Amino acid sequence: MRYHRIPDETVRRLPIYLRGLLFSAEQGKESISSRDLADFVGVNSWQIRKDFSYFGDFGTRGVGYEIGKLTKQIKKILKLDVVHKAALVGAGNLGLAVLAYPGFTIYGFDIAAVFDNDPKKIGRKVNNITIESISKLWTLKKRKIDLAIIAVPPDAAQQTTDELVKAGVKGILNFSPCYITVPGKVKVITIDMAMDLARLPYYMPAS
Amino acid sequence: MRYHRIPDETVRRLPIYLRGLLFSAEQGKESISSRDLADFVGVNSWQIRKDFSYFGDFGTRGVGYEIGKLTKQIKKILKLDVVHKAALVGAGNLGLAVLAYPGFTIYGFDIAAVFDNDPKKIGRKVNNITIESISKLWTLKKRKIDLAIIAVPPDAAQQTTDELVKAGVKGILNFSPCYITVPGKVKVITIDMAMDLARLPYYMPAS
Repeated sequence: MRYHRIPDETVRRLPIYLRGLLFSAEQGKESISSRDLADFVGVNSWQIRKDFSYFGDFGTRGVGYEIGKLTKQIKKILKLDVVHKAALVGAGNLGLAVLAYPGFTIYGFDIAAVFDNDPKKIGRKVNNITIESISKLWTLKKRKIDLAIIAVPPDAAQQTTDELVKAGVKGILNFSPCYITVPGKVKVITIDMAMDLARLPYYMPAS
Repeated sequence: MRYHRIPDETVRRLPIYLRGLLFSAEQGKESISSRDLADFVGVNSWQIRKDFSYFGDFGTRGVGYEIGKLTKQIKKILKLDVVHKAALVGAGNLGLAVLAYPGFTIYGFDIAAVFDNDPKKIGRKVNNITIESISKLWTLKKRKIDLAIIAVPPDAAQQTTDELVKAGVKGILNFSPCYITVPGKVKVITIDMAMDLARLPYYMPAS
């Protein structure tokens, strides 16, 4: 079942809630009030209730949300209830940082392949994965890897994208600081690592 | 002037609009309709109009928004109309990726100092900045650097934070994959690099 009616803004917040719920479960909690979840994730509690209303009613007045049930439901909606294999393209500083980042496992992602174009890097092992030549991107289709993370220099991003699309990749997380274009059937999310910093001065007291 | 009434969710979107506007200006455009801006940044046009209504009326029916005027206003609201010096703590893969990232300059940030605890790295130059010992964090106060980016291993994040706060830092962008606590007067934004990937499967066609 797809949940067609969920607005993009809600989909954007679901992983935030999911992280909060996973963290609360880790601390041994079984339920959480919308107010506590709100404080924890930094979203208004009315917004949380509204977001959850799109896919059911999970709260009990005075008790709050059942963490286990809600976690399962959000994972199902986001299609994170199965492990997704992902390929990383670019084994420079950013790519290696992505590879070492523990957060991907939490959401059920398994970075199963790493590609680079540097002959000095190809064949080397990082995190138990052998870096492959970028000329092998076409093998992703038969390896059933349809998610990719791009961490290549901006001038290589579009060509890399085109090759990934040709190899059957349907979702791309783009860390390269540039826009890339894809056919309509492919979904791209471009990360701007600096964007969150741009919100900080607003909240800082005048010095 | 502070804009007290602007909701956090709007503040979160302002940098997204700002990036879209800067990019449009780069392409030689002088005005943009809320619909074009919406398509470009991936936010509904009614949401954009609502967000902008918090700080004035910039649109002209049939013409759209004046890019120059709106850019200036958003920068002013976000206090990005002055250059902010920032310190980077942690010169590992992630830190070096942050340092090389062009996006920070776009928003008016100048990474002016880099710290690490590795004796092999201290004294080395990266991007024309000499890496300093983490024991020198206290110098930030007299150097008037009150913004910091943390890219240290999780087990060092809280101690680093405490030292930054002691050195007068008022805003922290945390790339370390863990929560950190700060006194109320300090603002922290924690980045989860994996969170955006968590939205991708939802949008991918079934294979």
